[in-house]
Amino acid sequence: MFSQKIVDNLNKSSWIRAMFEEGEKLRKLHGPDKVFDFSIGNPEIEPLQAVEDVLKKLVQEDNPAKHRYMSNAGYDDVREKVAAHLSKEHGVPVQPQNIVMTCGAAAGLNVVLKALLNPGEEVIVFSPFFVEYLTYIDNHGGKPVTVPTVPSVFEPDPEVLKNYISSKTKAVIINSPNNPTGVIYSEQALKGIAAALEAKEKEYGTAIFVISDEPYTKVVYDNAVVPSVLNIFKNSIIVNSFSKSLALPGERIGYIAANTSIKDVDVLSSGLVYCNRTLGYVNAPALFQKVIAETLEESIDAEWYKIRRDMLYNHLVSLGFTCLKPQGAFYLFPKALIEDDVEFVKRAVKYNLLLVPGKGFGCPGYFRLAYCMSLKTIEGSLPAFEALAKELR
Amino acid sequence: MFSQKIVDNLNKSSWIRAMFEEGEKLRKLHGPDKVFDFSIGNPEIEPLQAVEDVLKKLVQEDNPAKHRYMSNAGYDDVREKVAAHLSKEHGVPVQPQNIVMTCGAAAGLNVVLKALLNPGEEVIVFSPFFVEYLTYIDNHGGKPVTVPTVPSVFEPDPEVLKNYISSKTKAVIINSPNNPTGVIYSEQALKGIAAALEAKEKEYGTAIFVISDEPYTKVVYDNAVVPSVLNIFKNSIIVNSFSKSLALPGERIGYIAANTSIKDVDVLSSGLVYCNRTLGYVNAPALFQKVIAETLEESIDAEWYKIRRDMLYNHLVSLGFTCLKPQGAFYLFPKALIEDDVEFVKRAVKYNLLLVPGKGFGCPGYFRLAYCMSLKTIEGSLPAFEALAKELR
Repeated sequence: MFSQKIVDNLNKSSWIRAMFEEGEKLRKLHGPDKVFDFSIGNPEIEPLQAVEDVLKKLVQEDNPAKHRYMSNAGYDDVREKVAAHLSKEHGVPVQPQNIVMTCGAAAGLNVVLKALLNPGEEVIVFSPFFVEYLTYIDNHGGKPVTVPTVPSVFEPDPEVLKNYISSKTKAVIINSPNNPTGVIYSEQALKGIAAALEAKEKEYGTAIFVISDEPYTKVVYDNAVVPSVLNIFKNSIIVNSFSKSLALPGERIGYIAANTSIKDVDVLSSGLVYCNRTLGYVNAPALFQKVIAETLEESIDAEWYKIRRDMLYNHLVSLGFTCLKPQGAFYLFPKALIEDDVEFVKRAVKYNLLLVPGKGFGCPGYFRLAYCMSLKTIEGSLPAFEALAKELR
Repeated sequence: MFSQKIVDNLNKSSWIRAMFEEGEKLRKLHGPDKVFDFSIGNPEIEPLQAVEDVLKKLVQEDNPAKHRYMSNAGYDDVREKVAAHLSKEHGVPVQPQNIVMTCGAAAGLNVVLKALLNPGEEVIVFSPFFVEYLTYIDNHGGKPVTVPTVPSVFEPDPEVLKNYISSKTKAVIINSPNNPTGVIYSEQALKGIAAALEAKEKEYGTAIFVISDEPYTKVVYDNAVVPSVLNIFKNSIIVNSFSKSLALPGERIGYIAANTSIKDVDVLSSGLVYCNRTLGYVNAPALFQKVIAETLEESIDAEWYKIRRDMLYNHLVSLGFTCLKPQGAFYLFPKALIEDDVEFVKRAVKYNLLLVPGKGFGCPGYFRLAYCMSLKTIEGSLPAFEALAKELR
């Protein structure tokens, strides 16, 4: 009666719902502070005072047109500011006409894929990956191709990548700092990818685009540097949001920036604006475009996340978990203590621990924790992890 | 190099861009107040003070979680208020779990179509129609089927409709008050459509959904009543936004409401929430969900539009134009003075009049004017229409 594909997907993801409902049941049974929900990345950090102040100022201002439609690409002055900000950050010129303001990064990714893909063209994602990429690619008639990263290092290997590129490869999605691993792809790895792509572009006479999903670039630790994709990849498109950098996930505000070095980049940009309109986003929310335009140089303090990372990472390692220390983002991706990660996650529920199996990220045998909640919750969870480890070791 | 379909669509719609650029050129040449841009529906009416007051209050409030993610369906309390509001307005029970808050009606339509359509299924639209419907249907693998309305009355004829329904018909989109004609579909016409659909559902053993796109229900004149689709159609889904009723088009806030009488409506609602997430909308903007929840009973004063309708309608009729008097929305859809509506619109540019040809709405021979701007602009345009009529009569 409805879309069979959607109903099938609902059934396939019913275990997530089941887990969520189990969590709700536990919360009711034991009280919300006794349930340690590491399953979703909804940061409990507050926006900076500077952001709240700008919002208050804008709402008070007597600007009669402030809630009206603007160009589907966003306000011109906002696009100019985003372009100037990116030009400074990346050290390469970024043009305002190649910026499209979007309803967050998820919208941006859909818009980019819609503007690029012809039926049956392939999009490469590196596993482990943010699982929604597969759906986004399918939304626009593309075929996801999963390429494994180097085991336990979780960084792409350009030599492995080459084996997965075909004449139908239209794009590669990169997500660094990575959800779920916290890895920042090194400049060396990225340059290796660039060389592999260029060689294949020549071989097939095609263009392969790098779509860089960058919501976590402001959440990095220990002075780590995120290499600039605009410098490394000629055919690169940045998709970003202010969900994490300014802690505004509910407001759906982000942007697309197409590299000036793309051939016919202005045709691409027109296509992006067209897709932003016709996919029904129409335009990024008006008020928050203005908010981020005045707070582009701000970002949350990564130290807030680092304290949480260290507390949880040190504890898990002391309990015998194998885990990479995240360089960025706010997720841990440890090896499960038993081979079956779905079973592991089910067992954890007994200790009021809500986790996500690695299978959901195309990487079975691991599990993900989002450590973006209060320290009190994390502290409270430590004995639960200890008990879980004791049972399964 | 990019999506061929998108590039083709860009080329096909290049005349709109050309017209827009012509308008920009005219504005620079003669000054913006000498160009009469009736081409876009971006209301110059301001939001009510009550709406601005609620926004200011919410921004001042010390609610730490206000910019975070919430359920992909929207805040529970907001969905409850929308459901209660609709229950009261329609006189039928509407359940909060069948409400999905969306990034405006355009997003809502895409979400509904994605949740309903299997590949190649057909969606009926009545011409003249809001042109984006065709793209929205195509986005999700559907096939648009255009059914003409009764000539010059612009209301659907159930007997004609029957000829266009097949075993593949999944949905009918209704838009009343209508863009571009301003017609409110009568209860009699809607009941006729309901009977036609029911007969065909029985014949084919299918379910056919009525998707009611209702952004203009608060912009109605002369005490006209918009019949309730929830009462008339068992399988109805309302898509609405606050772009027009509260004059907030730039903020992208709206909702979907699925009729409780739909079989397996909760499966449908889960599918809608899933599609809202996976199409990349994720959730409706957080702050404006809260704004509309407190201002659901408010709406702009339709009198603001009525003055403009009357001024323009009376003038055009006095010049010999054939035109229905709109019962709602803020568009006039007169017959062009020459057969070729695209040529007519081009000729109008000479008089600094920017119009849209009926061809763009699946109805050649007519043209559309959006009368949502200042009275001064409308007054200023009157001699231009007179000169145009003189040239072409």
